[in-house]
Amino acid sequence: MKPTKIVNSVFSNFLLNGKDVLQCKCFPEWLPEERILEQKILDIIRDNFEKYGFSPIETSAVEKTAMLIAKGSNDREIYTLGRLSNYSGDNDQNLALHFDLTVPLARYVAQNYSLLNFPFRRYQIQKVWRGERPQSGRYREFYQCDIDVVGDKDLPLLVDAEMPSVIYQIFKQMNIGKFMIGVNNRKILQGYFSFYGLTNHCINEAMHAIDKLEKVGVDKTRETMAEKGIGADIIDGIINFAGINKPINEIMEYLRSCKIDNELFLQGVDELEQVIGHMATLGIPQDSYKVNLGIVRGLDYYTGTIYETTLVDYPEIGSICSGGRYDNLTSFFGDKKMPGVGISIGLTRLFSQLLKTGILKTGPATVAPVLVTSMDKSLMSYYFKIATLLRNSGIKTEVFFDSKRIGDQLKYASKKGFKFAIIAGNDEVNNDGVQVKNLETGEQRFSGLDDICAEVR
Amino acid sequence: MKPTKIVNSVFSNFLLNGKDVLQCKCFPEWLPEERILEQKILDIIRDNFEKYGFSPIETSAVEKTAMLIAKGSNDREIYTLGRLSNYSGDNDQNLALHFDLTVPLARYVAQNYSLLNFPFRRYQIQKVWRGERPQSGRYREFYQCDIDVVGDKDLPLLVDAEMPSVIYQIFKQMNIGKFMIGVNNRKILQGYFSFYGLTNHCINEAMHAIDKLEKVGVDKTRETMAEKGIGADIIDGIINFAGINKPINEIMEYLRSCKIDNELFLQGVDELEQVIGHMATLGIPQDSYKVNLGIVRGLDYYTGTIYETTLVDYPEIGSICSGGRYDNLTSFFGDKKMPGVGISIGLTRLFSQLLKTGILKTGPATVAPVLVTSMDKSLMSYYFKIATLLRNSGIKTEVFFDSKRIGDQLKYASKKGFKFAIIAGNDEVNNDGVQVKNLETGEQRFSGLDDICAEVR
Repeated sequence: MKPTKIVNSVFSNFLLNGKDVLQCKCFPEWLPEERILEQKILDIIRDNFEKYGFSPIETSAVEKTAMLIAKGSNDREIYTLGRLSNYSGDNDQNLALHFDLTVPLARYVAQNYSLLNFPFRRYQIQKVWRGERPQSGRYREFYQCDIDVVGDKDLPLLVDAEMPSVIYQIFKQMNIGKFMIGVNNRKILQGYFSFYGLTNHCINEAMHAIDKLEKVGVDKTRETMAEKGIGADIIDGIINFAGINKPINEIMEYLRSCKIDNELFLQGVDELEQVIGHMATLGIPQDSYKVNLGIVRGLDYYTGTIYETTLVDYPEIGSICSGGRYDNLTSFFGDKKMPGVGISIGLTRLFSQLLKTGILKTGPATVAPVLVTSMDKSLMSYYFKIATLLRNSGIKTEVFFDSKRIGDQLKYASKKGFKFAIIAGNDEVNNDGVQVKNLETGEQRFSGLDDICAEVR
Repeated sequence: MKPTKIVNSVFSNFLLNGKDVLQCKCFPEWLPEERILEQKILDIIRDNFEKYGFSPIETSAVEKTAMLIAKGSNDREIYTLGRLSNYSGDNDQNLALHFDLTVPLARYVAQNYSLLNFPFRRYQIQKVWRGERPQSGRYREFYQCDIDVVGDKDLPLLVDAEMPSVIYQIFKQMNIGKFMIGVNNRKILQGYFSFYGLTNHCINEAMHAIDKLEKVGVDKTRETMAEKGIGADIIDGIINFAGINKPINEIMEYLRSCKIDNELFLQGVDELEQVIGHMATLGIPQDSYKVNLGIVRGLDYYTGTIYETTLVDYPEIGSICSGGRYDNLTSFFGDKKMPGVGISIGLTRLFSQLLKTGILKTGPATVAPVLVTSMDKSLMSYYFKIATLLRNSGIKTEVFFDSKRIGDQLKYASKKGFKFAIIAGNDEVNNDGVQVKNLETGEQRFSGLDDICAEVR
């Protein structure tokens, strides 16, 4: 968690009434060079969401607490809003910060139903808040980047196949190494358990146990399931079943032939087969996805297709993008059936892991490649003219305004990571040009005004 | 405030335990077509911030309450964080949501002092929260778009002149009509009052009264100031002074000649003259700014140059971008002197006003110009190939997956605002092409695969 290297040589007064006012480490913040990188990734995500025709919305960070409690998976993580004790106004509503973007989506869709076009395709990139217990890599404030398609009454399985296509494009472009999109269908596991006679309650428990299989290991999972009263042979069966690691066609063949005569199971297999078929039709590269029967997804509202994406060389990072299909997004608000499919990237955690593992490395602390230095204050209008010239041709440019020696200005430029420094004194001005110094090579040469933009490109 | 036209024909259950769970209207949300427009403006702002070499940072939405109270101008507006009553964990810290981006900036700079490059140029585009009394156009959650330059020890007045240059570029590009950047220096008014023998406390009261002059009118201002014990002649003098509306050189001449022998006043005039001079040097168009001696800015932490920007044809909207110079950003954390200059755009309020007045009009509810329809499910891979072709050449494209008649698909396309619909049946596939329907003109013609991208551009 950053920033870590706090040196308070000049600031000592971080205490107020004995309480420190430094930022809490569960609420991450980045240095400029880190934020620039995070912003690049956010841009890639947004760009791909839009490329596939998802429209942006934002919902308020604040929802009525009653709704969040009713839909939340963990009340204890909800941050409610309050006022200071000296507040005497109307205590408006019972409000709280949203903990995900799916519950607000449901409320937004129900609230604006008559104003939206269905299937409703939206993306949402926003911070969410969860008061989780602080632990490595878990934050209390983080970015979620979501897309969902919500249908009015029905939604074809082609949409389930489009999601992995978007996931594929995003992670390919992020250039963070080989990744694998795991696909499954919840009905398969549910039907499997049902076939073996487990009660509904017991099925949920078993699903949660399988969900944690990879994290806690086979022994612990076996133990947990046994405690729930599930028979040893069923446990063995499901652990083998969830762990099958074979090419897609072999898994599908196995599912077709394993003689589990349960309607839900067969429906799940059928849906999975269709989704996999559509994924091929949509041209998603075969080596970027697989069927993984062990994928459960913790949230109970998924009802069909489910996804989890992992980095092949860094399985310890866990799922970097997940989601699935839910039968009825808006059931909370009425009888209307609105199925949806969505995925979510928990970006803050992913980003911090990418930095920590060194998969991503920070670059300059500036978005601008060019610094126009100011050697001679009387030439300021010339410097600003150069900057305007560069900016107008799309080159981000900072002008150095402080009265410092040119050596110090160049030091600042190097430290901050500029690629070029522009230097001009009376000689250059008289010759209608500047010195362009390449800060990476140290090379410096004269450039006429007309050529500056070409020179720094 | 939107959404307004709620028609709950199918959703009636917005009540839970007798409480409605609809979004509170003080926390604004936009329909997709509105959000697309807001996003465009946010992009213009960010683009210009970066063009001038400002680096992005984000601070956590959450700060220690103690710091916000100490730095806040209005405690009653602070939203604190709490937990539900069934929460039994550690009550971590006393946390609250930030109400602006300047206080967090001060904390961030002090906290990361040794890791930052000075002058520190940063931009920050984030939501902030203020529990204000609901009134027209005031929101409890809104975007602030800030840039600040923070110096280590000192910061040249050239920076004060650079700010209006950024403001100018942003509002020119937004294309929202004629705007005027008003510039003033706080020291002038303060010195003026001091010269006339007002005490420091009384000066503050008088400044606040002048700040509200335009809003409440001359009579009310006169009354307020008289109540504070300020003499009638001083009141008349200051109201005239603050209202001077003349060309810059005449105002400067007047300031030089008005014989107010007060050090602060003369320093303010001197600074203002330098800043105005630099603004000309930096090439900001003369008709886009003026000196307005009536600008005060409510916040007491400004100490020098101050700005307010207004739309010439819509003065009722008030200031759309304001800011100024403060002597010591980080005084709270130690003795180190860190002067800064910054501006802030309160985007949410501005955006809602631009919509309301019709200065901005919403467009399509999709970011994609092209919809690939799906007439024949067996040709799905062809449709997706077309979409990939378009996307790869940078054209945002949605594929319609639902099994609906082509007429309904085109209706969806028109309603959502697509510019082109791509239609293909076996005929088109056999001829390696598609029909491209221009939804604005109704025109439709065959295009070969190689020409599609050119056709829809």
